[in-house]
Amino acid sequence: MQISERLNALRGQMAVRGITVYVVPTADFHESEYVGEHFKARKFITGFTGSAGTAVITMDHAGLWTDARYFLQAERQLEGSGVTLYKMAEEGVPTVREFVENALTSGGKLAFDGRVVNSALGKAFSEIASKKGAEISMDEDLIDLIWDDRPPLSAEPVWVLPLSASGKASEEKIADLRRVMREKGASTHLLTSLYDIAWLLNVRGGDVENVPVVLSYLMINDKDCFWFVNEAVLSHEVKEYIASIGVTVRPYDDFYAAIASLSAGEKVLLDKGTVNTRALGSIPSGVEVIDAPNPTVLMKSIKNAVEMANTRVAHIKDAVAMTKFMIWLKTNIGKIPMTEISVSDKLEALRRENEGFLDLSFGTISGYAHHGAIVHYGPTPESDIPLKPEGLLLVDSGAHYLEGTTDITRTFALGPVTDEMKKDFTRVLISNLTLANARFLYGCSGMNLDILAREPLWEVNADFKHGTGHGVGHILSVHEGPNGFRWRKTPDRSEGSTLEEGMITTDEPGIYIEGKYGIRTENELLCRKGVKNEYGQFMYFEQLTFVPIDLDAVAVDMLTYIDIKRLNDYHAAVYDTVSPYLTDEEKEILKTFTRAI
Amino acid sequence: MQISERLNALRGQMAVRGITVYVVPTADFHESEYVGEHFKARKFITGFTGSAGTAVITMDHAGLWTDARYFLQAERQLEGSGVTLYKMAEEGVPTVREFVENALTSGGKLAFDGRVVNSALGKAFSEIASKKGAEISMDEDLIDLIWDDRPPLSAEPVWVLPLSASGKASEEKIADLRRVMREKGASTHLLTSLYDIAWLLNVRGGDVENVPVVLSYLMINDKDCFWFVNEAVLSHEVKEYIASIGVTVRPYDDFYAAIASLSAGEKVLLDKGTVNTRALGSIPSGVEVIDAPNPTVLMKSIKNAVEMANTRVAHIKDAVAMTKFMIWLKTNIGKIPMTEISVSDKLEALRRENEGFLDLSFGTISGYAHHGAIVHYGPTPESDIPLKPEGLLLVDSGAHYLEGTTDITRTFALGPVTDEMKKDFTRVLISNLTLANARFLYGCSGMNLDILAREPLWEVNADFKHGTGHGVGHILSVHEGPNGFRWRKTPDRSEGSTLEEGMITTDEPGIYIEGKYGIRTENELLCRKGVKNEYGQFMYFEQLTFVPIDLDAVAVDMLTYIDIKRLNDYHAAVYDTVSPYLTDEEKEILKTFTRAI
Repeated sequence: MQISERLNALRGQMAVRGITVYVVPTADFHESEYVGEHFKARKFITGFTGSAGTAVITMDHAGLWTDARYFLQAERQLEGSGVTLYKMAEEGVPTVREFVENALTSGGKLAFDGRVVNSALGKAFSEIASKKGAEISMDEDLIDLIWDDRPPLSAEPVWVLPLSASGKASEEKIADLRRVMREKGASTHLLTSLYDIAWLLNVRGGDVENVPVVLSYLMINDKDCFWFVNEAVLSHEVKEYIASIGVTVRPYDDFYAAIASLSAGEKVLLDKGTVNTRALGSIPSGVEVIDAPNPTVLMKSIKNAVEMANTRVAHIKDAVAMTKFMIWLKTNIGKIPMTEISVSDKLEALRRENEGFLDLSFGTISGYAHHGAIVHYGPTPESDIPLKPEGLLLVDSGAHYLEGTTDITRTFALGPVTDEMKKDFTRVLISNLTLANARFLYGCSGMNLDILAREPLWEVNADFKHGTGHGVGHILSVHEGPNGFRWRKTPDRSEGSTLEEGMITTDEPGIYIEGKYGIRTENELLCRKGVKNEYGQFMYFEQLTFVPIDLDAVAVDMLTYIDIKRLNDYHAAVYDTVSPYLTDEEKEILKTFTRAI
Repeated sequence: MQISERLNALRGQMAVRGITVYVVPTADFHESEYVGEHFKARKFITGFTGSAGTAVITMDHAGLWTDARYFLQAERQLEGSGVTLYKMAEEGVPTVREFVENALTSGGKLAFDGRVVNSALGKAFSEIASKKGAEISMDEDLIDLIWDDRPPLSAEPVWVLPLSASGKASEEKIADLRRVMREKGASTHLLTSLYDIAWLLNVRGGDVENVPVVLSYLMINDKDCFWFVNEAVLSHEVKEYIASIGVTVRPYDDFYAAIASLSAGEKVLLDKGTVNTRALGSIPSGVEVIDAPNPTVLMKSIKNAVEMANTRVAHIKDAVAMTKFMIWLKTNIGKIPMTEISVSDKLEALRRENEGFLDLSFGTISGYAHHGAIVHYGPTPESDIPLKPEGLLLVDSGAHYLEGTTDITRTFALGPVTDEMKKDFTRVLISNLTLANARFLYGCSGMNLDILAREPLWEVNADFKHGTGHGVGHILSVHEGPNGFRWRKTPDRSEGSTLEEGMITTDEPGIYIEGKYGIRTENELLCRKGVKNEYGQFMYFEQLTFVPIDLDAVAVDMLTYIDIKRLNDYHAAVYDTVSPYLTDEEKEILKTFTRAI
């Protein structure tokens, strides 16, 4: 079925119900960043496959909103679909809310599926409808009516993370959570974030591609902890474990009824930014809502000693795979056929050789030449292009291991590169090194530090249109808050936290020249405590990532003696860390990759 | 009278009135940063002369709260006074509010003069009193009762800033203000900030030392603009000017009665952070208060084209005086007697030679050797020490000229300096240069940029305990918001504004080694628009300050090639800018001061 036919079918359903504006966000019932196949309604109705976007359909117009990471991809995928691309945050482009407000007329009707719209946005939509004298309906899953072969809800088996992997028993985490609930005066807490539930219960599943979570909801009070989950995914052993930690299993779909039966006088802690509108709407009157970030967000971002130690192991495994990949790639380019997908498969195969490998942590970005400029490009059989022994290949990839999660980007010179490429590569390198080597006083957030990575680009009037770094989950989402590196305040993102010891954040500046090439260099940084003296508690970053940075693309004369020392020190550490796992032949090549300059 | 006798006298007055806790802030009725002699009640009662501090007196305890700039000075001045120093923001030190809450008991009475306490703090005090079951009295100026020779209110003559100096007629400024009032839905606006009133009316006076403002209040609605001012300070010409811009003069003391006679239904815009508690308390019920920053704060911070051009002229004049001072100082040190005060006087004399010189913009800080470590040290006849041909002299000074206001700090090597001094001097130099050369996207605030100046210190676990920079007024307060460079969020400071073209901010990192030496290097930076491209509007800083940085204190081997280029470029500009105003002999010396390294 063509996109236009799907739009027609949707408009047929809208007409029957008197709906004039229908919104299809990219979300599951849990506000997950990535969603399972069942939830890819926005992709179904627009054809755009990116991980972020919102579709708004009226009787005579269809629009897709997405952010700068996806502009090029969306342009390509929407071509001829009849869906208009709205580039978010560009000058003069209306926001989804502005568009909806403008499209909605008095007597019209705004509709969406309230389970896939968070409470904050649902409230905003209600206000718009009320302002425009329009109706609103929050229970209309129209896509379900027209999507014949819609995949069912995922039901992957659940497994339990042993204490040697979690570092902290679920009972203790639950006790911590109850303590924070008491501090906030909450009698009950609704937790719908799949990452937070998995962290809290020390369970993992496979219900979202590349994110080992379990489709479920959680309701906790001082006495009980109810886990709303499809019982079919729980083995006998898992059920015993769950019972042993004082958690009661209830059917997934019973969550809304359980909310509806909360007693008047209860004080319910929830995060309106992640709880969906139907859940919020199910709360009986007389129940007080305390809207605050989920306490588990900060808790899970501060990795405990076991998680830190294990993560270092995971990164060494990952570095060995990446280094072997780099050796293979740079040795064989031009000699054997390679494409974006084939090298991505090669890298995955090398990662799978590691003991404890679980899954990729996200779909590998393998972008050659102009494809590298598409920030979140993922090669498809249609877009795949052969690699030549020249220019730049950008590979952004990562994996989940039993010990932790990785995320790394390297950009490789496959042969001759232009001076402009070298200059840009070197600027990105300086950005990456400067941020990684930051020393700062406790109390700083990523907003204070971000400019360390931007300045080498800003000084030549360049920039990269994405955050400099994001928090990384532990065998969970590769993107997690509340830490991050970003200079602009983004109220709906939880990235402004003070940097705490144990937080892991990526450091991934880039330069993207549309139609030509893209460069990104990404390491992960573990925040650590340094010296404490009369000025306060100093903090620094421990490098977690140990993979060579391709010296063939570096313009050495642009580096200061400080940059050079940092690069050489890093490469020495890479050699020391990775070489024990290589053959003698590989070691020799790594020695040249990591030579002091 | 000793401080202890004053405290006894005050406690006598407290006892009569049943007051158990009395608070004496450092403020006039206008929340000015510096206050006229009449208002120096906190200095009277504690003996501490710093520009910032709050005294809290109970029947058996007296405390003074001040910030890190003044710790050393306050320790010295409070010695033996019976007043305890509370170091603000240090670990374990209670805040004023915490102390008051702790000291106040049920049935006790908290009192202060509501005219010198801003509304926000007044509200906090009310809440504390109510929480503790204590009384509160806001109209007790007890210091006035015990201060026999209290200086009267200042009554310096008012003069009008011509259009060639202001760049914008007062009528236009008033029209702009009324437009913003309408946007905010305000029918009346109360303006009590002396800086904002002087800026709005294009008048200047002399009622605060080093700040050419006029003691007055302003009330404006869509029809009328009332200026509450001592009529005796207005000449016939000034009165005619004031009438010509549509402003009506009323007696200074009538302000509170005028507030009390506002009609119900009025919507009054005011900033509770700057309007005093008595003014707020005078507002009749039925009048709605819109609490927001004074619109004039942002307006006056964005210098217009005339102000920018004139400021450049002021800075050249100032640079000539400073350069001559540096030549004189470094040529004559060890040959003729010099003290902290005598060189400060010499510098003032050189500044006074400039046409258009009005006044110093603040009391000169001239700190030799260990005195340099006292951030806001001002030498007194008692503290004054002779300068020797060795070590470091820190001079922080500035002036008002008809063309604008300056603020500059240089640290001079008076002879041999230690390696440690050179290293610290060079770190501060790198800090200063890095921030000054920042390029950044529009939307950044000083909080984004601050780390550029901190990092060279933070990387060696050092810091300076003051903001990196503050906005500078135009023939007004040398410290003004809403711009600044500061990494920590300080809710009660207005420094977090987006950096706009036309804003002037100081760049003044430092290092202070208690008991040994202090180093600070301060230039002023004018924010300008740079390239606008697909990434956004780039911004940069134009240097306003052109005075040599003492190369005798620089450790050249610590500089990168980028630092060296920046320093050499700066010094070349200094030579080109200043040399035309020097004798041939002076030029030769300046040539060596500004030599390329």
